[in-house]
Amino acid sequence: MQTIGIALLGVGTVGSAVARTLQEKGDELARQTGMQLVVRWGMARHPERVIAAGLPEQAATTSLDPILEDPNVVVIVEALGGEEPAATYMKRALQAGKHVVTANKEALSKHFAELVAVAREQQRALLFEASVGAGIPLMASLRQLLSVNRIERIRGIVNGTTNFILTLMAEEGVPYHDALREAQRLGYAEPDPTADVEGLDAAYKLSILASLAAGQHLHPDRIDRRGITSVTPDQILDARTRGGAVKLIAEALRKDEEWELRVHPIFVPGSDLLAHVRLNLNAIELTCDRVGTVVLYGPGAGPAPTAAALLADVIDAVRFGPALLPEVEATS
Amino acid sequence: MQTIGIALLGVGTVGSAVARTLQEKGDELARQTGMQLVVRWGMARHPERVIAAGLPEQAATTSLDPILEDPNVVVIVEALGGEEPAATYMKRALQAGKHVVTANKEALSKHFAELVAVAREQQRALLFEASVGAGIPLMASLRQLLSVNRIERIRGIVNGTTNFILTLMAEEGVPYHDALREAQRLGYAEPDPTADVEGLDAAYKLSILASLAAGQHLHPDRIDRRGITSVTPDQILDARTRGGAVKLIAEALRKDEEWELRVHPIFVPGSDLLAHVRLNLNAIELTCDRVGTVVLYGPGAGPAPTAAALLADVIDAVRFGPALLPEVEATS
Repeated sequence: MQTIGIALLGVGTVGSAVARTLQEKGDELARQTGMQLVVRWGMARHPERVIAAGLPEQAATTSLDPILEDPNVVVIVEALGGEEPAATYMKRALQAGKHVVTANKEALSKHFAELVAVAREQQRALLFEASVGAGIPLMASLRQLLSVNRIERIRGIVNGTTNFILTLMAEEGVPYHDALREAQRLGYAEPDPTADVEGLDAAYKLSILASLAAGQHLHPDRIDRRGITSVTPDQILDARTRGGAVKLIAEALRKDEEWELRVHPIFVPGSDLLAHVRLNLNAIELTCDRVGTVVLYGPGAGPAPTAAALLADVIDAVRFGPALLPEVEATS
Repeated sequence: MQTIGIALLGVGTVGSAVARTLQEKGDELARQTGMQLVVRWGMARHPERVIAAGLPEQAATTSLDPILEDPNVVVIVEALGGEEPAATYMKRALQAGKHVVTANKEALSKHFAELVAVAREQQRALLFEASVGAGIPLMASLRQLLSVNRIERIRGIVNGTTNFILTLMAEEGVPYHDALREAQRLGYAEPDPTADVEGLDAAYKLSILASLAAGQHLHPDRIDRRGITSVTPDQILDARTRGGAVKLIAEALRKDEEWELRVHPIFVPGSDLLAHVRLNLNAIELTCDRVGTVVLYGPGAGPAPTAAALLADVIDAVRFGPALLPEVEATS
């Protein structure tokens, strides 16, 4: 049995779900994979967080340094969220010879080419299944499809919060602000909902998917973006009358060798599967030159699915190292 | 640049699509992967088939022996279909030290544990993305999900022919035999449609999916199976009136440590995504303990998607060898 040391950067909802999942499933995973995953460090501003996640007190650190210096740490799970210091920490971790696994769409989408380049230089894994669609096996599917297919279009519902709000507005006839409040009450939306409702979260995710499909870094700033705050009850009612729905659609379209990228609320007709994606679910449609159009559908958020995707990546990082790195050119 | 010799067992619709795809995409794949894939042999009863697929005359063989003796053949693509001689040939190929990639659900589902065991013994790859759902990345997704999740249920539409027939019966009000004739005319159904309409094809596919989820070989003979030949226009009309549809559903359900397996035409309510899967499309729902329910949807058949999945497997076989082999116990 191989013992694999891991470190959690961030012990919030996602980080502590990783710790909890390992407490519950670690032995089963060890039997299946031959790897005993051990959390050696939990980096958090407050050590109580680390202890509350069921980790020993001496695992708590407020600094990255002891983690990078610990030769027994093989994989770093980045669950800080936000662009910085996450992007810098991931780079430093790769440079220190650690594999990196992340759920952080913002840092990844803004530094995609650079992070992949550092990982390749260092011959380390950089995996990010959890960054889009949580546990929906999107990266595994994209990797498989891209090995032979050219992807012509990506189109989907990648933000559960806004889809929940739009579903409530459509099915219960409530106005935007009431639906937002309900999403906040249920914990689907943050107290400051900007990143979701203005389409930023969707843009980060689209940037990652499109960069993989394009083989070059398509920065989220390039995405033409409109959120859902100005969607009116009338527009939603009208869509429903026509048998469809208003959905926040993230779309990347290959046009010759350029890509058109947008996130916007539009009418989706009832004949389209995406019109039937309700509540906080996600669905992503990939149109490929050989395989045709494939859709992946499922819960796109939540601590348990996100933690499962991160741990699957930890296992793949150890098994395959840099072999799963995507081909990505720097920003065009 | 690495040159990788491959051999096609069977140069029918699927085998020649593999040859054609390589003629069209071989150089692009070589640039991406660093592997130039070269078809060194095409095994077929009639050499004209091999030549018609654009391969040189000297690549034609009616026997497996020269393929197994050729040290430059690294991967064997089995596209014969049917249980035998395919199963024996795959075993012999693995024993001769070749990686095996297959689209053959019947041979695989009936000899799953044995073939995986031989591959493991020989430390060779055995990959079969194309055997279920053609180019839908089901095996890639299952591998990713199974590394951390326990799968509780699999449920889906895995046979495009019967789904096409049922769609025609529902949407155009035609009786079973007329819909079957139309499916035959379009090349979706064989002249002898038994394997599709009696649910055998669906049972083979379910056996493969369920064996992966269970970690043990669940032979297709164990599947409680009913086809669509006795579905009446009245049942279909009634389903439509109730807002749903009659669908041929393949289902594997974990009950304690046993599995219930069935293929049967049943009423699917309109609230279920599977009710909206039309024509010859497929959709497979995987219910996981951590990630929840994920659905994969897309074209489940056709030479181009099948060839793309086979070639993606060829590339993975060379890259990862036996590392992607599933854990499977012999039949319980």
